[in-house]
Amino acid sequence: MRKLSFAVVGAGHGGKAMAAHLALKGFPVKLYNRTLSKIDPIIKMKGIEIEGEINGFGKLDLASDKIGDVVKDADIIMVVVPAFAHASIAERCAPYLKDGQIILLNPGRTCGALEFLNILRERGNTSDVIVSEAQTFIYASRGMGPASVKIFRIKQAIPVAAIPAVRTEAALDKINQAYPEFISATSVIETSFNNIGAVFHPAITILNASRIESTLGNFQFYVEGVTQAVSRVLEEVDRERVEVAHTLRCKNVLSAMDWLIMAYNVVEDNLFDAIHSNPGYVGIMAPRTSNVRYITEDVPMSLVPIAEFGRVFGVKTPTTDSLIKLANVIFKTDFIKTGRNLTRLRLDNLNLDEIRNVFIEGAPKRLF
Amino acid sequence: MRKLSFAVVGAGHGGKAMAAHLALKGFPVKLYNRTLSKIDPIIKMKGIEIEGEINGFGKLDLASDKIGDVVKDADIIMVVVPAFAHASIAERCAPYLKDGQIILLNPGRTCGALEFLNILRERGNTSDVIVSEAQTFIYASRGMGPASVKIFRIKQAIPVAAIPAVRTEAALDKINQAYPEFISATSVIETSFNNIGAVFHPAITILNASRIESTLGNFQFYVEGVTQAVSRVLEEVDRERVEVAHTLRCKNVLSAMDWLIMAYNVVEDNLFDAIHSNPGYVGIMAPRTSNVRYITEDVPMSLVPIAEFGRVFGVKTPTTDSLIKLANVIFKTDFIKTGRNLTRLRLDNLNLDEIRNVFIEGAPKRLF
Repeated sequence: MRKLSFAVVGAGHGGKAMAAHLALKGFPVKLYNRTLSKIDPIIKMKGIEIEGEINGFGKLDLASDKIGDVVKDADIIMVVVPAFAHASIAERCAPYLKDGQIILLNPGRTCGALEFLNILRERGNTSDVIVSEAQTFIYASRGMGPASVKIFRIKQAIPVAAIPAVRTEAALDKINQAYPEFISATSVIETSFNNIGAVFHPAITILNASRIESTLGNFQFYVEGVTQAVSRVLEEVDRERVEVAHTLRCKNVLSAMDWLIMAYNVVEDNLFDAIHSNPGYVGIMAPRTSNVRYITEDVPMSLVPIAEFGRVFGVKTPTTDSLIKLANVIFKTDFIKTGRNLTRLRLDNLNLDEIRNVFIEGAPKRLF
Repeated sequence: MRKLSFAVVGAGHGGKAMAAHLALKGFPVKLYNRTLSKIDPIIKMKGIEIEGEINGFGKLDLASDKIGDVVKDADIIMVVVPAFAHASIAERCAPYLKDGQIILLNPGRTCGALEFLNILRERGNTSDVIVSEAQTFIYASRGMGPASVKIFRIKQAIPVAAIPAVRTEAALDKINQAYPEFISATSVIETSFNNIGAVFHPAITILNASRIESTLGNFQFYVEGVTQAVSRVLEEVDRERVEVAHTLRCKNVLSAMDWLIMAYNVVEDNLFDAIHSNPGYVGIMAPRTSNVRYITEDVPMSLVPIAEFGRVFGVKTPTTDSLIKLANVIFKTDFIKTGRNLTRLRLDNLNLDEIRNVFIEGAPKRLF
């Protein structure tokens, strides 16, 4: 069997970890980054040093800021960029993607695959590609230098879904040749709503806004940042998310509590204790500024679509709305307008069955 | 001229400062407190030690937990309790108040005088009393012991208004015999909306919620607690408050910036710098828990009525609403229901002119 070839889009620490690891697994890998200077050392070294769980040198076939050169012949395109960059990556890829290619967003946050596919179609790309999203990023990793990265942990059993869901198995058949860790989710509703980062990151950041700014993040984000008051807000945001998912008839959505139990074997009966008994959170420091992806990614790309689905289907999400509003005020922006609102997702004016159809069977009257 | 007699209701540090100071000024003073044990030392000493700006021993005619004994013969009743206790004080005073007595809430927060008067009338008290409210508390004071108090500063030019405003001069004629510091406000709209505590306290507390809980308030509330992110939220809450006041045709409402300029001679062009250049804020520590009057008083007694007036008169107050919602979640309560909503203020179903009439001329069709 011919080895699958990979494109990795994005050379942050996550993209570097994935590119190097895939290369060490023996797959041909090309790496794209928008800013050339950032990958200059990788170009010079022709690859990436990797340490931690995996050790070695991942030799790359190409590292480039020309996205066409990187993606056009890849069997699988791994997108490893913040969710707010998915749209621009889709725009730049649209001229090059062709039948049979598979795109996986690592991760999609909420409705990333749908947004990506919409943009391909609107840019006139009607090829038979499969766009899919992972529920979370597979690696816990950290950049160690311009061409080196450390992998602390490789996560197991990461749900993946394609849009529509009927294409998921075809995508996983190929993706699993490199990554057996990815498993099948029922649909992108599941991967989009089982997004615990959206519950934890914005609420903890906003309720620690002044502390982050005045201490430059010099405190433990979860251990010190999640107090009883904060945990009550987390519980409400979580409850609203789960309720919206249930309204979309997603059965596999986990509460944050259940997720902590599943992911970390935590055994507690409330979210505050569950967070504080999770050794995985010890030592994770707060970000150094409040201008962080915990807001700029999680609010527009996750809280906004969750609140939008709630609004359309009559689920009240006042706590989520309050966090979005405060984020808007703090960042002097309008994350509802810039984020994944239903207009941007091309789901406005659809009823519940029509939306589920877009996610699950594919919408025959639409371009895809 | 016969010396006016005073009742002081509430024996926190503020009530103690006022009772002792009035006694030292030579007025007969009786002091009420709901919890007898708290005033036992005052009863034994027959008065209160006072130090700081004023020094001496304020001898009281009575200190008691029988509110009737304290208020029934007083010319002026000074209420010095948190705003959330105004209603229960009004209920307990209702059987005893009679023609000619003056009640002054120190301070009223937002619509305290209206709430107090409504309750008197609903309890069947139709006597010709004047209920008024001060815009802020006259003393900066601190309790030093069970029967002693320190006055750091006596504020000047404190606006007072009666409900309705046509009664303000009659109230001040008497109050000024003891306190020339009180001046006439145009109406309780002015005293109720020029409430800078409502802008600063809840927003700073909520955006420092975890820091307060995890450090037990071991940081400077304004100096460290107001960062750029927090100041942007303060600016929005302030803008919403001023806009609602303007809709009620209150011309004398000050922005927080203008108030800092007026009260502290601060000269800056933005709220962040104005707060940080105010030496009056240096050394003010955060509260030790987030379960503080900064929330339990300012949210239901000020932010709620401001948002309620906004809702009825078409002024959007999304930032204020967000803070109320987060306070509700953090405190597991419903401050809109427990607070000064328009139903509780008996202003529901009134139009703007009718509401202004209640505040300014008195509403002839109502009991008062």
